[in-house]
Amino acid sequence: MSDAKFPNSCPIPFSGGDIIVSAHGGGGRMTRKLIEEIFAPAFDNPLLRQLHDGAVFEGAGDRFAFATDSYVVQPLFFPGGDIGKLAVCGTVNDLAMCGARALYLSAGFILEEGLPIEQLKSIVNSMSRQASEAEVAIVTGDTKVVERRRGDGMFINTAGIGVVPEGVRISADRIERGDIVLLSGDVGRHGIAILAARGNLQMDMPVASDCAPLWRSVNSLIAGGIDVHFLRDLTRGGLATALIETAASARMDVSIAEAAIPLLEVVRGACELLGFDPLYLANEGRFIAIVRPEQADQALDSLRRIAGGVEPAIIGEVTGGEAGRLWLRSCIGIDRPLELLSGEQLPRIC
Amino acid sequence: MSDAKFPNSCPIPFSGGDIIVSAHGGGGRMTRKLIEEIFAPAFDNPLLRQLHDGAVFEGAGDRFAFATDSYVVQPLFFPGGDIGKLAVCGTVNDLAMCGARALYLSAGFILEEGLPIEQLKSIVNSMSRQASEAEVAIVTGDTKVVERRRGDGMFINTAGIGVVPEGVRISADRIERGDIVLLSGDVGRHGIAILAARGNLQMDMPVASDCAPLWRSVNSLIAGGIDVHFLRDLTRGGLATALIETAASARMDVSIAEAAIPLLEVVRGACELLGFDPLYLANEGRFIAIVRPEQADQALDSLRRIAGGVEPAIIGEVTGGEAGRLWLRSCIGIDRPLELLSGEQLPRIC
Repeated sequence: MSDAKFPNSCPIPFSGGDIIVSAHGGGGRMTRKLIEEIFAPAFDNPLLRQLHDGAVFEGAGDRFAFATDSYVVQPLFFPGGDIGKLAVCGTVNDLAMCGARALYLSAGFILEEGLPIEQLKSIVNSMSRQASEAEVAIVTGDTKVVERRRGDGMFINTAGIGVVPEGVRISADRIERGDIVLLSGDVGRHGIAILAARGNLQMDMPVASDCAPLWRSVNSLIAGGIDVHFLRDLTRGGLATALIETAASARMDVSIAEAAIPLLEVVRGACELLGFDPLYLANEGRFIAIVRPEQADQALDSLRRIAGGVEPAIIGEVTGGEAGRLWLRSCIGIDRPLELLSGEQLPRIC
Repeated sequence: MSDAKFPNSCPIPFSGGDIIVSAHGGGGRMTRKLIEEIFAPAFDNPLLRQLHDGAVFEGAGDRFAFATDSYVVQPLFFPGGDIGKLAVCGTVNDLAMCGARALYLSAGFILEEGLPIEQLKSIVNSMSRQASEAEVAIVTGDTKVVERRRGDGMFINTAGIGVVPEGVRISADRIERGDIVLLSGDVGRHGIAILAARGNLQMDMPVASDCAPLWRSVNSLIAGGIDVHFLRDLTRGGLATALIETAASARMDVSIAEAAIPLLEVVRGACELLGFDPLYLANEGRFIAIVRPEQADQALDSLRRIAGGVEPAIIGEVTGGEAGRLWLRSCIGIDRPLELLSGEQLPRIC
């Protein structure tokens, strides 16, 4: 990527001060400086340049997907990413899970007074880079500022619109008995990366978050002719939560094998040390795909070609009991049902 | 509207506790309770019922508009509305200002630990009512929870998708010398309502916010055959900020007459008492329309028919000097240019 794409990753000083103050959210001259000197150059595209209350674009008889997420991760910067990268990837991935290629994103910022402008710039540049990589344009946005101790540095909301290729229908009601569950890579890296960034872990080699856009992997399945029945990204509740909810939606039991789930040694070690269950740890660049058994090997090959150093795996199958539960077969062959956690292992993870 | 539309405005107690706790944002069982018992019943519609990562819908060769806003108003409840009503109307209105009828909204909630569930329910019901009234469906959403003193009760982001009727093109570059500026009603009510709700004003008859959806008014212009050149809603920076930015975008001077701007006596009085300029006070249900001079009277008639007790007015014209400034003609005939405020008169107004 050339720097020319990111005119804001440049040394021009911001003329609106060094930290965020209330006036940056007032809709007056200071807000305009923020938009003109920080947001507009970083996210530059013809639709955003309309600088109107919204962006207008054309459809063409397509099916669209629409998704949103707010991001409140702490700290704002962590190994492998930052809240801006997360805010772009997260919503692009929610669209990908609908089988949709992301076209447009909105970005809503809630800034706390006192946020250093340098941090805002760095995060906005990260969003810009990530949007380029995911081939999505940030076309409309909004900024609000709240007083100190009424926010927490920065919250970002992104909403996204994507287009679903013809013939693709991803839905829990398409899941059938005998279908195979694929996992796109090892689990738990994002959770451990955040924990380390909070200073709760002393690690020589910090684990980088798996935060990444997933559309290329999803598209490798679709474009390769795999009739994907269901997709789900593994976010705050981890692999277990995603599959428990999937099984419940499909009203079919799903069974996965503990031994088949890829896990970095360092993640396993951290979990043992801290008493976390890696199956419930957050991920920001992993998903499950549920496909017909006769297409499972081809799907695995497709994921491997895209994965780049990450090991996708077949981890289980749809067994079909009507209770719609998730069963884990342990390494010694004992089956036990997994349940939703009441709360969460780690708050503010995304 | 019948209560049947709002199954959640019902006496069933929420089984997830009385106040928001961290676990409501964890993606586990408590989050599910929030979605199933509070959000899903209130916003019920077929697309939301997909309960997937996003909502999938079909286009048909149309032009779409896409807009977003985050809402951080304090207090959450005020005369004439609440943050939920604001979050629906605000984004519906941003779309309307693109000439678009809102179709779908997303809703992202950032809740502070300790928020009473009753307040959340009340706000969610208000959003549901407002969405029904504006004929828009809330089709996808997200909830995050932050610790006490890292948020402020509740922030809401909404993003919206709307469809632009054929032949409609609302853009500052369509503004021409001689065009007429219409204002849809009296200004400043929202700002004064918020101020009163903060206890900063002792008023016998509190002013209700003007917060309202604007599509019906916009549509009355479009459907009546008015070739609307430009639309802009008057939000946090008030009438003056909206017109200063419009004049700058169009690179045309705009001149308005102080005497023509409708203002409630009680708003005028509060402004005099407190030293506020009503032209910069926030509004959440007012807009300006810029139209050809020969269609101005017809446009005014259309707005009057919809307005319901509010007095729209012709307030000025596009005079065309290239500096792109806004001029205010005072009641004694003196012209002065208006400038963007550096900050804002009232923070956290929307």
